[in-house]
Amino acid sequence: MTIKLGDLAQALGARLEGDESVEVSKLNEIGLADSSEISFLSNPKYLKYVKTTRAAALIVSEDMEIDFPNLLRSSNPKQSMLEALRLLNHQDRAIRPGIHPSAVINTEVSVPDSAEIGPGVVIEEGVELGESVVIESNTVICADSQIGDHCHLHPNVVLYPGSILGKNCIVHSGSVLGCDGFGFAVESGEIEKIPQTGNVIIGNDVEIGANCAIDRGSIGPTSIGDGTKLDNLVHIAHNVRIGKNCFLTGQIGIAGSTVLGDRVQMGGQSGVVGHLNVGDDVSIAGRGGVTKDIPDGAIVSGFPARSHREELKIQALIQKLPELVKVVKMLDKQINKT
Amino acid sequence: MTIKLGDLAQALGARLEGDESVEVSKLNEIGLADSSEISFLSNPKYLKYVKTTRAAALIVSEDMEIDFPNLLRSSNPKQSMLEALRLLNHQDRAIRPGIHPSAVINTEVSVPDSAEIGPGVVIEEGVELGESVVIESNTVICADSQIGDHCHLHPNVVLYPGSILGKNCIVHSGSVLGCDGFGFAVESGEIEKIPQTGNVIIGNDVEIGANCAIDRGSIGPTSIGDGTKLDNLVHIAHNVRIGKNCFLTGQIGIAGSTVLGDRVQMGGQSGVVGHLNVGDDVSIAGRGGVTKDIPDGAIVSGFPARSHREELKIQALIQKLPELVKVVKMLDKQINKT
Amino acid sequence: MTIKLGDLAQALGARLEGDESVEVSKLNEIGLADSSEISFLSNPKYLKYVKTTRAAALIVSEDMEIDFPNLLRSSNPKQSMLEALRLLNHQDRAIRPGIHPSAVINTEVSVPDSAEIGPGVVIEEGVELGESVVIESNTVICADSQIGDHCHLHPNVVLYPGSILGKNCIVHSGSVLGCDGFGFAVESGEIEKIPQTGNVIIGNDVEIGANCAIDRGSIGPTSIGDGTKLDNLVHIAHNVRIGKNCFLTGQIGIAGSTVLGDRVQMGGQSGVVGHLNVGDDVSIAGRGGVTKDIPDGAIVSGFPARSHREELKIQALIQKLPELVKVVKMLDKQINKT
Repeated sequence: MTIKLGDLAQALGARLEGDESVEVSKLNEIGLADSSEISFLSNPKYLKYVKTTRAAALIVSEDMEIDFPNLLRSSNPKQSMLEALRLLNHQDRAIRPGIHPSAVINTEVSVPDSAEIGPGVVIEEGVELGESVVIESNTVICADSQIGDHCHLHPNVVLYPGSILGKNCIVHSGSVLGCDGFGFAVESGEIEKIPQTGNVIIGNDVEIGANCAIDRGSIGPTSIGDGTKLDNLVHIAHNVRIGKNCFLTGQIGIAGSTVLGDRVQMGGQSGVVGHLNVGDDVSIAGRGGVTKDIPDGAIVSGFPARSHREELKIQALIQKLPELVKVVKMLDKQINKT
Repeated sequence: MTIKLGDLAQALGARLEGDESVEVSKLNEIGLADSSEISFLSNPKYLKYVKTTRAAALIVSEDMEIDFPNLLRSSNPKQSMLEALRLLNHQDRAIRPGIHPSAVINTEVSVPDSAEIGPGVVIEEGVELGESVVIESNTVICADSQIGDHCHLHPNVVLYPGSILGKNCIVHSGSVLGCDGFGFAVESGEIEKIPQTGNVIIGNDVEIGANCAIDRGSIGPTSIGDGTKLDNLVHIAHNVRIGKNCFLTGQIGIAGSTVLGDRVQMGGQSGVVGHLNVGDDVSIAGRGGVTKDIPDGAIVSGFPARSHREELKIQALIQKLPELVKVVKMLDKQINKT
Repeated sequence: MTIKLGDLAQALGARLEGDESVEVSKLNEIGLADSSEISFLSNPKYLKYVKTTRAAALIVSEDMEIDFPNLLRSSNPKQSMLEALRLLNHQDRAIRPGIHPSAVINTEVSVPDSAEIGPGVVIEEGVELGESVVIESNTVICADSQIGDHCHLHPNVVLYPGSILGKNCIVHSGSVLGCDGFGFAVESGEIEKIPQTGNVIIGNDVEIGANCAIDRGSIGPTSIGDGTKLDNLVHIAHNVRIGKNCFLTGQIGIAGSTVLGDRVQMGGQSGVVGHLNVGDDVSIAGRGGVTKDIPDGAIVSGFPARSHREELKIQALIQKLPELVKVVKMLDKQINKT
């Protein structure tokens, strides 16, 4: 689509400084935008691009000092940028209701007319599908799973038997829900598999990135609360309970039976050992490795994870270890060698 | 199924303290069990649930001090719990012998009558399949692979050409066996791919979690010994040799040509660099990063990994660095400024 | 194939010390080779095998002191080994042009006669395929993606809509290109998904390991330059830009909008936080966690990553912390208690 800057400013609730008749068609990065596109500037790291960008206009804050032909001044530049993105760039993938003839669906399963079932999809006995679900190519839904309304499963997802997805969930390609937990008993040298008899229960509005693995519970479920988001390559072990509206960034791992509260945020490559309680509103920094219970609201980092403030102090002292050693050697010399 | 507590106690080899006529149907977590279910209590963390649980009975040790209507006293509570799980909760997935018509199987491949081949499965030329193998939906078995009796491959597994699986192995969804190792030669700025010509050889009774990647050897095999278990998202590089009965927890990585002995245990997110020898019965703690050979029986942690005892000591001293710095500053002041 | 040692020496540009009439058929590891195979020796760790190996001959350097019946002396043993590997072990997988009848290909898509499209492959509308592409079983190519000449996609790969692959790329099984980035806006407690509207652009001669996840850009592309190689289970977040001829080893993660220069090398399980610049020719050691910009040519390690030299020094001092504490305690005693 094409829109005039004047109309765009109005649509975004922004104030235009510049030529309202200029036509633009898309939002792009400041370093890549051409003269038919707009861009945005919030992180000062990117100020260097102002002189060279070919963008027709920039979304900026009300008070940013900047010399540029066309500015879209906003009291909430991030929100304006988000709206521009929705308005100009985003195209919802239209659902194409129907069942591809190559899909293999158990004859007893009822597929709503509003659902899209792609090529090569396999849906086993006892599965329940909500309205307007999209199940893309080669995804496999094993027996007795339930998928809520408006869920979107991308290609090559696997749901093990009995998995439950709430409404409006997105599962990206390669993710596996309901695989066996890592449970074994060793009796006099013999390894016995502990039966994994629980399932996975996912709430509403959950998004799961690509190539994640979420184990079924051993006894009882592994569960993820409403609104929680997982990035790629996340590992959730059996009987973990994750609260609502958590953000779990790429490559994190949570060991068995650990409980996370609501609104927990975990940075990339972080982890939590098993059988712990992590409170509400906890932040775990990237690479943080949690080895004990964490109270509500705490911000932790490092491995073993401690209060972020303490970790920063300790990291600063580690950085200064060479100086400390020098001082101690000097003192030792002063006292013991002279 | 439903069973009376008296009969259940007998089946578990436990001693009932309570009402033998109470009927129960399942084992559940103490916090989730209802009055038709039993639960168990071993970790003192969960003692708080004793007052509120609705469980009909609890499996506990012979000597646990606990006030509860019905107790199943066991000299080995973990084993009793495992047996209850098998007896009450576990349902073996029955094999449904036969080949789904949508499977694509090379015409020269002989599929045993006892085998179950699911929808969308692809089996290439030269593959050998054992008795009672289960190959679930959309799994791909490339040329010349061998799969031993009673193996169970979940949906969307990939075996590259020439992969060999022993008997009774389980491979969870999304795992890839036999992909190329990461081998390149750089000659005067030109990058050349080193041919990866070996394969993957897996022993008997091996379980591989979801979304793992096990490289084929460059020259010769990458191998995993009998009874070894891999959790999810584990990365095994080319020419790694893993012994028998090892436990490799989630998200660990082992770099090329490293050799692990028997009964090695590795915690989550740990790793070993290439070309090392890790002895028998070694334990590597979670997040441990091994950078040199480890002798038999050692327990190591940290990065670079050292003796666990030493690591604990060093971590304690790091925690106390702020105090140490204070003492040194005071001494410096006493000696040099007064 | 079988070749005489004399002819093999000539083919490899090596000098034979031994019996030129001995026939060999393969290159193998020194510990596994039998009498019809040759092997090689460069890492002194493997010298112990010289007495026991059954290999017919060994590739060694010109000056290695070694007593063995047949030696292939080379001024560049690694290159000779590589050539022997190509000559004796490697068999190119021959392309079998054609479209498997079970593949589901949008009727408007033009498939070159030289292409191989395997069973269960799904190719959506608007996809462009180069000459001699190989797309193996159950791989899914979503709408409007482009795949350059001679690309090889192994089974169960997924390309989201609009993904672009250059020429001669290899993508291993389970990898996902173009999944949504992890972008959410939280406005007064409400979580909104930020539309992910960019794509993934991969250069020529790129290899991507198994079970990787490469996010599409949020605005603009996520891109990977010519010649770059990714190992298994690598996570590349949205809007990351990776230069040419980089090596990214297993399980590394790169957070959003970070830019890597050319010839960057990252060791296993390392990572880079978002919005950073990593210069050309940077080396990041295994487990290194980069938290700030890195200039060209730097070698960094540790977390937070610092100059490798400094990190080694600090690690050595950490190792000696117990001694340091002892000295300080003694000094304190001398000054304050006597």
